[in-house]
Amino acid sequence: MYEYTHGGNVYGSGGEIREGLIDFSSSINPLGMPEKAVAAAKSSAAHAVIYPDSASSRLASELETHEGVGAGEVLCAAGASDIIFRAVNARKPKKILVTAPAFADYERAGTAAGAATVRYYLDRQRGFGIEEDITGLIHGSEPDIGFVCNPNNPTGSLTDMEMTVKIAGACRSVGALLVIDECFLDFVSGPDEYSAKSMIGLYPDILIVKSLTKVFAMPGLRVGYCICGDKEFLDRMRFCGPDWPLTNISQAAGIAALESGWDHIEKSREYIDAERGYIISELTRIGLTVYPSRINYIFFHCPWDIDLAGDMCKKGVLIRDCANFHGLARGYYRVAVLTGDKNRLLIAAIGEVLNDRRNIAQPINDTGG
Amino acid sequence: MYEYTHGGNVYGSGGEIREGLIDFSSSINPLGMPEKAVAAAKSSAAHAVIYPDSASSRLASELETHEGVGAGEVLCAAGASDIIFRAVNARKPKKILVTAPAFADYERAGTAAGAATVRYYLDRQRGFGIEEDITGLIHGSEPDIGFVCNPNNPTGSLTDMEMTVKIAGACRSVGALLVIDECFLDFVSGPDEYSAKSMIGLYPDILIVKSLTKVFAMPGLRVGYCICGDKEFLDRMRFCGPDWPLTNISQAAGIAALESGWDHIEKSREYIDAERGYIISELTRIGLTVYPSRINYIFFHCPWDIDLAGDMCKKGVLIRDCANFHGLARGYYRVAVLTGDKNRLLIAAIGEVLNDRRNIAQPINDTGG
Repeated sequence: MYEYTHGGNVYGSGGEIREGLIDFSSSINPLGMPEKAVAAAKSSAAHAVIYPDSASSRLASELETHEGVGAGEVLCAAGASDIIFRAVNARKPKKILVTAPAFADYERAGTAAGAATVRYYLDRQRGFGIEEDITGLIHGSEPDIGFVCNPNNPTGSLTDMEMTVKIAGACRSVGALLVIDECFLDFVSGPDEYSAKSMIGLYPDILIVKSLTKVFAMPGLRVGYCICGDKEFLDRMRFCGPDWPLTNISQAAGIAALESGWDHIEKSREYIDAERGYIISELTRIGLTVYPSRINYIFFHCPWDIDLAGDMCKKGVLIRDCANFHGLARGYYRVAVLTGDKNRLLIAAIGEVLNDRRNIAQPINDTGG
Repeated sequence: MYEYTHGGNVYGSGGEIREGLIDFSSSINPLGMPEKAVAAAKSSAAHAVIYPDSASSRLASELETHEGVGAGEVLCAAGASDIIFRAVNARKPKKILVTAPAFADYERAGTAAGAATVRYYLDRQRGFGIEEDITGLIHGSEPDIGFVCNPNNPTGSLTDMEMTVKIAGACRSVGALLVIDECFLDFVSGPDEYSAKSMIGLYPDILIVKSLTKVFAMPGLRVGYCICGDKEFLDRMRFCGPDWPLTNISQAAGIAALESGWDHIEKSREYIDAERGYIISELTRIGLTVYPSRINYIFFHCPWDIDLAGDMCKKGVLIRDCANFHGLARGYYRVAVLTGDKNRLLIAAIGEVLNDRRNIAQPINDTGG
C-alpha cells in the first residue's frame, strides 16, 4: 500500500478537514497567499469551462521575468512533485543519486521509473551538509540523475555555490543530469549567493526545481516550475507527462501572486527571521537540539524517546516526525515558522508534552541515521 | 519540438485567450458547468493555503457512488491524460496496442515510457468500428497494454459489450492490461449497454478511464478518474505519479458537480440529441460525408481538397482537423455539438466556405487512412 509520507495532511480518513488543527508539519509562508491571488482564483472559476493553456505560457513568461532568466527557460507543471516525475520520466535513469535525508519524491520518482537509488548520507556531525566526498560517490556510482535539495528538506542545511560547482562538475563528467531543488531557497536572505540560477547558461544539464507553493502559500494550487537552459529537455518533459498540468485557476492565481513578487517575499523573510529566532531560542531553552536554519522551518532532535509528534497531535498541533526519512533515526522533527500567536502555542504545547514525558522517558542519542 | 495536438486551443502564442472564437474543436457539454460547481470553485479558493487531500478521498467516494462501483475502485488524477500516463508508468509496457485513429495520448504515454506501438487500423468501410480481427492482432503482437476508446475519439464509433468481452479475453490471454477510455460514453443514451463497468469484478485487468471534463463542462479543472477492480494496481498508479494531482478547488468543484449528477447528464443528452440531429442533417445536405454519432461530437469527411479548418478559423469558428490522427488521411474533421445558436453559425460558416472553395478545389476520396 502506497503511504502518503509528507507533512500537511490535515485530512481525516474520509477526506474531511480535521477542525482546530494548527499545522506546523507543512512549511508554508505564514503571511499567507497574496490577496490578489485569491481574488484571481475566484474570478477565474468561470473560465473552467474552457481547456487551460496547456503550456501555461503567460505564467511561464511571468516566472521568467520574476526569476530573471531567459525566454523558454521555465516549464510549469503540477507542483514540484510533477516537475520531479517529468524530469525522471524524460531522462529514464537506470540509477539516481540522492542525499539522505531529503524530500522523499526524488527517490519515489526514481523507483517508480525502475531506477536504483544510491544514497549520499548526510552527517549529523557535519550539520547534515554536503561535503566534497559526494563527488567521489558520483564518480564511483555513475548515476543518470543526481538530486540536491538546497536548502535541504528537512534539515535546512545549505549548499554553497562552490560545492554546487563541484557537484555539477562531477555530474557532468559522468553524464548525469543534476536536479537542484530550490523550493525553499527564496526564504533565505540573499538567495543568489546559493542559487544555481547563474549556472544554467554554462550547465544545460542542471535543472532547478521551484514552486509558488511555499513562498506564496498556495499549496492547494499546485504551481510548480523548473528552470533549465536545455530547452529540448524541457520539451521532452512536456512530452513525458499529461497535457494541461495546471488548471486555468492555478495559472491565473500564479500570475496574480507574482504581481506581489519579491516585495511579498522580502516582507515574509523579515517576519520569518524574527519568529524563527524566537522558536529556536525557546526550543533550545527547553532542552532540544536545534539545527541552524535560515528559512521558514526548523529541524531539531528530541533527546528523550517519546512520540512527540503523536502527543502534539493530541493537542491539535501537527509537527513533522522525520523518522520516515532515509538517513534519520527516531527523534528528529521539523516545524514550520508560522505567525507569532501560533508559534507561542507551539512552544507551550511542546513544553507541556516534555513536562509530562521526559522524566519517565529513556534518553535517545542524536546519532543522525 | 513537442507539438500540442488536441482541440480546444483557444490561446494565442502569448497565452492570451483569443477573443470572439466559437470552439467546436473541443467536445464539451454545451449546457455548461453546473452552477453549484462554479460556486464551489469560488468558495474554495481561500482553501488554497493548505495542501489538497492527496488521495482526493471525498471526491473519489462521491464518484464511487455516482458510478455505482465499490469503495476503493476509483482513483482520481489530473484529467484522463494523467490517468493514462499513470497507468502506463505503473505497468511499464514494452509494447502497447492502440486503435488508429484514436485519442493521441495513449500512444504518447507509451512512447514517453519507451514502449513500441502496434496499431489496429479502423476501417472506414466498417464505420471505423473494431472488428473481431483485433483479437488476432492482440494474440500475434502480445502487447502489455491495449487501449480502446469507447466511443472512439474522433470517429464516434461504439464498441458493444460482446466485442469488449472478446478484446478483454484476448488481452487476458497475453497478460495485457486493457485500458478502456469511456470519457464520452455518458453522452450515449443507455451507456450501461456499452460500459465495461459491469466487467470489473471479473476482469481486474480492465481499467476504465473517465473524467468530469466533458460531461460537466469543466476541462479547466482537470478532474479525471479511473475505475478498476485491482486496488493494488490503483495504489501503484498513485505511487507512479506526483502527489496532490488535484487542487482543493478542483476537488470541491467535482464534488459539487456530482450533486447535479445523472439529472444533469440526462438533460444534456436530450438537448444534444436534438441538436446533433440538426447538424448531421445540415452537414449531409451540404454534401459532406457524416459518420453516425450518438454522442456530443460529429465526425465527417469533406470530399473537396480544401483547408476547411483553416478557412473556418478565419471566420472565428474552430473545428478539429483530424489529419494529424494516425489512420486518417486529409479531409476528416470533428465538430462538437454546442448550443442551438452556435450550431446554426457553424452550419452557416461551413456553407460559406464550401460555396467559396468547392468549385475550384480538387476532389479527395474518403479513403480512411
